[in-house]
Amino acid sequence: VSRLTIWPVEGIGEIAEGTVIADEVASACATEPNGPLQPGDVLVVTQKIVSKAEGRLVAIDPSDPLSHKALVEQEAVRIVRRRGDLIITETRDGFICANSGIDLSNVEHGYAALLPLDSDRSARRIRDGLRARLGFDVAIIVSDTFGRPWRQGLTDVAIGVAGIAAVVDLRGTEDSQGRILQVTEVCVADEIASAAELVMGKATGVPVAVVRGVDPAWLREGSVRTEIVRPPSGDLFR
Amino acid sequence: VSRLTIWPVEGIGEIAEGTVIADEVASACATEPNGPLQPGDVLVVTQKIVSKAEGRLVAIDPSDPLSHKALVEQEAVRIVRRRGDLIITETRDGFICANSGIDLSNVEHGYAALLPLDSDRSARRIRDGLRARLGFDVAIIVSDTFGRPWRQGLTDVAIGVAGIAAVVDLRGTEDSQGRILQVTEVCVADEIASAAELVMGKATGVPVAVVRGVDPAWLREGSVRTEIVRPPSGDLFR
Repeated sequence: VSRLTIWPVEGIGEIAEGTVIADEVASACATEPNGPLQPGDVLVVTQKIVSKAEGRLVAIDPSDPLSHKALVEQEAVRIVRRRGDLIITETRDGFICANSGIDLSNVEHGYAALLPLDSDRSARRIRDGLRARLGFDVAIIVSDTFGRPWRQGLTDVAIGVAGIAAVVDLRGTEDSQGRILQVTEVCVADEIASAAELVMGKATGVPVAVVRGVDPAWLREGSVRTEIVRPPSGDLFR
Repeated sequence: VSRLTIWPVEGIGEIAEGTVIADEVASACATEPNGPLQPGDVLVVTQKIVSKAEGRLVAIDPSDPLSHKALVEQEAVRIVRRRGDLIITETRDGFICANSGIDLSNVEHGYAALLPLDSDRSARRIRDGLRARLGFDVAIIVSDTFGRPWRQGLTDVAIGVAGIAAVVDLRGTEDSQGRILQVTEVCVADEIASAAELVMGKATGVPVAVVRGVDPAWLREGSVRTEIVRPPSGDLFR
């Protein structure tokens, strides 16, 4: 890889239940000043618009904190930690995050956006739709904004992928000293999601970014659920 | 921000104790096909070469696992978790990571590289050296490769910064619906470190990348230690 270029896709309209995201993205990219999509581009799509398109908005009573809290518990398979208003839960997909990934920003007042039911499948649907329109494959990463233990500040991570590896295994590759690297499973999907966040910004509401120039070797079918979600048996922090 | 460009800096020579990284970087960037550095560029420098330049290599006996283990415990202020050969520790800087951040890859056989004593200071030293050579400011992020709870695959994070915010606080900014965002502290330093890893690769041994096009509002003096390291009182996972 010699050069990576990342830009926000402007001009994507309001997304409602039933909106076909691939259509919106293809139209917006066709008129982008950065030019049309190319094979091997990675599109990072924020969870918020995927949830909206898939009808994952639910009404809550904004004046009643219990309304939000009940929803968080309903979407959780397990409460991992709780302190005051902060609830860290495990979702059905195996994500461990605040409030079961439910969030109220960039959503109409009185509504909350739940996570997609299966974000890998959501990514594949967008990829398939774009392939039909473009005649070639682009990779899709559905991203969300998570906190982390020990480190302040949120970062964007991948919750679903299509057409790109989630984790790239470099075990057995020689390092620059000719030694075999010991632990080199790199979560490129999370790194690409983070990179895309840098051009989208939380406040500006741009929900899609293009990442051009990733290593073509990463462009195989991937899955966040099977590659990134750590099985409980291998996890020291549950 | 309309466009971010990231490339690896090729041609940086072997780094030994006493090597002035700013000199190496300035020379290598001067002949880069991507052109010279510009004000506002962010240079991501991997911990490994910073540790080498600062003489943080120590001899170990590669045939004796206890030699490595003793070093990990010496560099730790606390053992956070231990399972088999895996030790998660807290370092003096407050980082929680595997093996006190000590790693053997891309280091001469028989040596281990310890973390810099103060990576924010290391970043400032590189920034100051480049300012003296270039006549303008670039931002520096010293990066390292850490694992995470719950998610498989490693990602690069910031362990030191200079001339750039580690965490950007968007609290109070309106979202696209005109609502005040609730939690919007974004760890841009970690996101930039991750983005840079995508072009450096673990196996290729390129230790520096340039990130051009970050939001100029982020270019203030920052600190990983005060902005990113989460105080124990605010941490649910210790």
